[in-house]
Amino acid sequence: MQLGMIGLGRMGGNMVRRLMRTGHEVAVYSATAKTRETFAMETGAFAASSIQELVARLRPPRVVWLMVPAAAVDTTLKEVAGLVQKGDIIVDGGNSYYIDDIRRAKELAPQGIHYVDCGTSGGVWGLDRGYCLMIGGPKDAVLYLDPIFKSLAPGKGTALKTPGREKTGGTAEEGYLHCGPVGGGHFVKMVHNGIEYGLMAAYAEGLNILRHANVGKKEHAIDAETTPLRHPEHYQYNFDLADITELWRRGSVIASWLLDLCATEFAGDPDLSKFAGSVADSGEGRWTITAAIEEGSPAPVLSAALYQRFSSRGEDDFARKVLSAMRFGFGGHVEKSDK
Amino acid sequence: MQLGMIGLGRMGGNMVRRLMRTGHEVAVYSATAKTRETFAMETGAFAASSIQELVARLRPPRVVWLMVPAAAVDTTLKEVAGLVQKGDIIVDGGNSYYIDDIRRAKELAPQGIHYVDCGTSGGVWGLDRGYCLMIGGPKDAVLYLDPIFKSLAPGKGTALKTPGREKTGGTAEEGYLHCGPVGGGHFVKMVHNGIEYGLMAAYAEGLNILRHANVGKKEHAIDAETTPLRHPEHYQYNFDLADITELWRRGSVIASWLLDLCATEFAGDPDLSKFAGSVADSGEGRWTITAAIEEGSPAPVLSAALYQRFSSRGEDDFARKVLSAMRFGFGGHVEKSDK
Amino acid sequence: MQLGMIGLGRMGGNMVRRLMRTGHEVAVYSATAKTRETFAMETGAFAASSIQELVARLRPPRVVWLMVPAAAVDTTLKEVAGLVQKGDIIVDGGNSYYIDDIRRAKELAPQGIHYVDCGTSGGVWGLDRGYCLMIGGPKDAVLYLDPIFKSLAPGKGTALKTPGREKTGGTAEEGYLHCGPVGGGHFVKMVHNGIEYGLMAAYAEGLNILRHANVGKKEHAIDAETTPLRHPEHYQYNFDLADITELWRRGSVIASWLLDLCATEFAGDPDLSKFAGSVADSGEGRWTITAAIEEGSPAPVLSAALYQRFSSRGEDDFARKVLSAMRFGFGGHVEKSDK
Amino acid sequence: MQLGMIGLGRMGGNMVRRLMRTGHEVAVYSATAKTRETFAMETGAFAASSIQELVARLRPPRVVWLMVPAAAVDTTLKEVAGLVQKGDIIVDGGNSYYIDDIRRAKELAPQGIHYVDCGTSGGVWGLDRGYCLMIGGPKDAVLYLDPIFKSLAPGKGTALKTPGREKTGGTAEEGYLHCGPVGGGHFVKMVHNGIEYGLMAAYAEGLNILRHANVGKKEHAIDAETTPLRHPEHYQYNFDLADITELWRRGSVIASWLLDLCATEFAGDPDLSKFAGSVADSGEGRWTITAAIEEGSPAPVLSAALYQRFSSRGEDDFARKVLSAMRFGFGGHVEKSDK
Repeated sequence: MQLGMIGLGRMGGNMVRRLMRTGHEVAVYSATAKTRETFAMETGAFAASSIQELVARLRPPRVVWLMVPAAAVDTTLKEVAGLVQKGDIIVDGGNSYYIDDIRRAKELAPQGIHYVDCGTSGGVWGLDRGYCLMIGGPKDAVLYLDPIFKSLAPGKGTALKTPGREKTGGTAEEGYLHCGPVGGGHFVKMVHNGIEYGLMAAYAEGLNILRHANVGKKEHAIDAETTPLRHPEHYQYNFDLADITELWRRGSVIASWLLDLCATEFAGDPDLSKFAGSVADSGEGRWTITAAIEEGSPAPVLSAALYQRFSSRGEDDFARKVLSAMRFGFGGHVEKSDK
Repeated sequence: MQLGMIGLGRMGGNMVRRLMRTGHEVAVYSATAKTRETFAMETGAFAASSIQELVARLRPPRVVWLMVPAAAVDTTLKEVAGLVQKGDIIVDGGNSYYIDDIRRAKELAPQGIHYVDCGTSGGVWGLDRGYCLMIGGPKDAVLYLDPIFKSLAPGKGTALKTPGREKTGGTAEEGYLHCGPVGGGHFVKMVHNGIEYGLMAAYAEGLNILRHANVGKKEHAIDAETTPLRHPEHYQYNFDLADITELWRRGSVIASWLLDLCATEFAGDPDLSKFAGSVADSGEGRWTITAAIEEGSPAPVLSAALYQRFSSRGEDDFARKVLSAMRFGFGGHVEKSDK
Repeated sequence: MQLGMIGLGRMGGNMVRRLMRTGHEVAVYSATAKTRETFAMETGAFAASSIQELVARLRPPRVVWLMVPAAAVDTTLKEVAGLVQKGDIIVDGGNSYYIDDIRRAKELAPQGIHYVDCGTSGGVWGLDRGYCLMIGGPKDAVLYLDPIFKSLAPGKGTALKTPGREKTGGTAEEGYLHCGPVGGGHFVKMVHNGIEYGLMAAYAEGLNILRHANVGKKEHAIDAETTPLRHPEHYQYNFDLADITELWRRGSVIASWLLDLCATEFAGDPDLSKFAGSVADSGEGRWTITAAIEEGSPAPVLSAALYQRFSSRGEDDFARKVLSAMRFGFGGHVEKSDK
Repeated sequence: MQLGMIGLGRMGGNMVRRLMRTGHEVAVYSATAKTRETFAMETGAFAASSIQELVARLRPPRVVWLMVPAAAVDTTLKEVAGLVQKGDIIVDGGNSYYIDDIRRAKELAPQGIHYVDCGTSGGVWGLDRGYCLMIGGPKDAVLYLDPIFKSLAPGKGTALKTPGREKTGGTAEEGYLHCGPVGGGHFVKMVHNGIEYGLMAAYAEGLNILRHANVGKKEHAIDAETTPLRHPEHYQYNFDLADITELWRRGSVIASWLLDLCATEFAGDPDLSKFAGSVADSGEGRWTITAAIEEGSPAPVLSAALYQRFSSRGEDDFARKVLSAMRFGFGGHVEKSDK
């Protein structure tokens, strides 16, 4: 099939590479001339020098796939929408808020343009592993794009057949799925990322507990501001986290791809010394909690995971001062300087 | 009554002062000679130069009240126990773990020494407001100490009569209570402090949200690592927290003594600039959660409050690095330097 | 002053009564004829039979105060807006979302109608204690309404002067405050309620821990699905929660108005047997968390408190089934029937 | 090698089967005669009719492996310890608290008996997949048992080599690891299970949010006790969770073995109708939090996951009543009956 890709960042570039491997014809555009030219040279994809040129290159029904930062989707979409025609399909494959999908589809409907939202998981590994695709939008458009989705997705791969699905059809086993009407793809991707935050936090907290299992070996101050450790003899372990994360990869209940990544990072740098611990969040975690709250669906674990990221960036500094101020107020407690 | 007080810190000293105001006879001991001598000079209390001298000064049945750091109770108790006699009473008024009370009472029982545990709330304000006393131990010993407890406690004060308690007797309205057998006083005090952590965190989080209600006025980076603020126009408020905490003191549902303290701290220093936000925890919060877990009693709010304090002291640094390491692993995300 | 009140529910009715006590002239309207007529009979307020009649009764600049359920504000407001004139003031004193305030003020601006938002705390007690008022809107309109706010608010009352505010002016000490531009009142009220959820949860969890302090007296199953209690001797307490909540009212760090209410409820019914434990949430808690997330301000305690309410209404039933399904999947664990 | 296994439950039985497959000689004992006899018939293992007979059957240095419920370990261990000799090895392969390991090793040391703790993950799947083994104890004893561990463990299997470990030796890649001195194995297993709770809760919450994504289709009450859903049009999705969990197994960031199990359970029963949602916890989750607290290591996510299980069994009923009581107290709110 023929497809125009706008955006050649970490995700978009590799997706084009993967599409071209299976014989699709891809025209690309990136705002930075050098990026698109280097990319064209390397891959043989046609690099358009403008969105207008990109769209002009495509045959109807045109397929334009946006792979740009969430904050840039609306501007780009507006430009594309002004160039395409009735029956063409625009796919937003980035990390858009599904509520924006609903709005955009409504805005494009009068022109007869089909809008498809596609949540894409896979990160920098997708080129080789394939991308897990969560798709929302009108049935016909999604069906039309099937060859594209099939090429991007991982396929059945080495994952074992799920017992009970022997006779179940559909594309889920191929790693892509039409989840529902417009916004449904990004909704599922949003929750996917919300879960991801929770999983990551569970590993992080557990590994932190292992890391501090030698706390009984340390000297502790004896004063009214410090809780004595009752049994230092219970905390005398220096665990090797590289070995332990590797161990858990085999046969344990908590084996996962995220754990594989932990093992990799610990293998090279057991103290994770190259990281400072300031953790960004890119929107889906927040939206997941917002959805949970609007639904009245409790999400204490996912929320706590999100808040840890806020705190990692110092967003609770003032709250902590309020605590110190109250402690000073009722007990005359002065903060210890050796944080 | 006559009483020997060991420990003249923030709590012990003021308790003696309050006891002497109502005519009790108090002998005191503090490990630091200067402390006890200055105190004796100021108050007229008898200052013993050793625990032995203190006990010798008391008439049987002797009452020895310990007001020392949790980590020092056992040593002090052992010394006192070697000096007192059958029928004497030892009170631990500090922040002991109730499980230690149970053990200590059992150890002292063969000698016929009565052990009473007394959780004491009131902080530096207790001298004037009185101390809220949560008492555990054998009924007779607690009853014998009633005049002491009555003097230390706040009394009915200005608190309105609770509807439905018109005919209820007992000492709760006076601000002291025999809560149950040994350990029961410190158990109730422990949970009191656990609740305190939760209340403090609720105010701190809420005030932090008010403090950041102007986030829409700030510039934000537009990149894949930063979540755009969808509606900056909704976050344009510069709230005056000194006024707001003062306001809530009157007629609001969240009026409390802790809020009074907030108002006081904000009055002098609306940015709380003298605090760094490193928050100690002194044991009871931890023990509360431990009790909750052993009971199978859910305590997500109290736990979250405790963990905030751990995090404020950097105890999650490694966990945060694990998060960054995983993000780097799957998405090539590099931490932003401008934490 | 003259004022028209729409809504005579638990809040509106008592607010009118309080206003009339201090000499204001109030016309009222309630959708239910019987409600407004009974009210008029009792209080002497003028009861209009329609909103039109209510507005007609008022002299310009008219002051119309809405005290209706959040879901009914927009409809009512639209009707009032069609009847009032340039320079008139509409106050929304209910529990509106501050984001709606911002929108409404913008919609009314072309007509020259002033919109004031007023978060009102005090519950059924406000009639006697006064209402804590958190006000947002244009300065002139708020100033014009000062006599109304002053009458509704608690006044200085018995609350002690906050140290450091001796020379601070303003109305905060009277129990009402102009917090900021439009929406600012409801923003502060929203966070007030968010904090309220956190405080309530802290007490509830702590009291639950005390309630289960006798768990060591109970028989426990010995099987692989049940965690044995290691030290039953540490959980042998039958605490009297009526006495303990009463006790804490005096001199303790956790004294508060919410605790006063706990003491009252326990006084009559120590097992709280008349309650089922299904806990509603009326919006502000959700909005507080939404604001926290948009600001990037961590709120684990307030969130956990909100989620407990969701769970109390069974909103996590499916999530719990997922846990059971996974346990069955990896360990063959069958749920125990004696929940 | 020769080994005596005590306990033939879900875990012990399959471990013996796996050991015998690779040629080890195993004698077994189970308290229930029928269990051990049926087992002997099926497998050809020698079934002892008493622990005494089991030990007598073994050649020194004897290896006795305990695979019994946590609550039964101490009794069984005592009996075994009375029968074995200096130089023999006792392995506790169940879910013991590592603190008990430390105590037991100390108790057995004077007799010269080696005590090895072995945390075992793998559930009912271990027979075929192998068991992930986390081992603590004296180096020599652990080394002696290497052939046993190797047979039980999964081996390298299909897991990809971790980048950076090309030259790293050790047994972690085989799925078993000597983690540290006594207790170290169960400590790591404890945290493994703590993480497991967190992972499970993250999936459960996320799937609950997907399940409720159709909340906009439902009728909602309009009253002061119910928060209106502002945008029902945003919650119109009926997601197919069987397909979605299957989808995520391929290429997504949240792929894991637990997700595989979810997919299996949903495949057969998309509503999970055979589960009630009462979730047991078997000790390690609690101990993980206790360790976190003693270390001062924040664990909000893991704690929230544990508390959800408590709540699923009704352990927060009283706390919820306290909330309802307070709401009644300040606002006259009566609980809605239609929970």
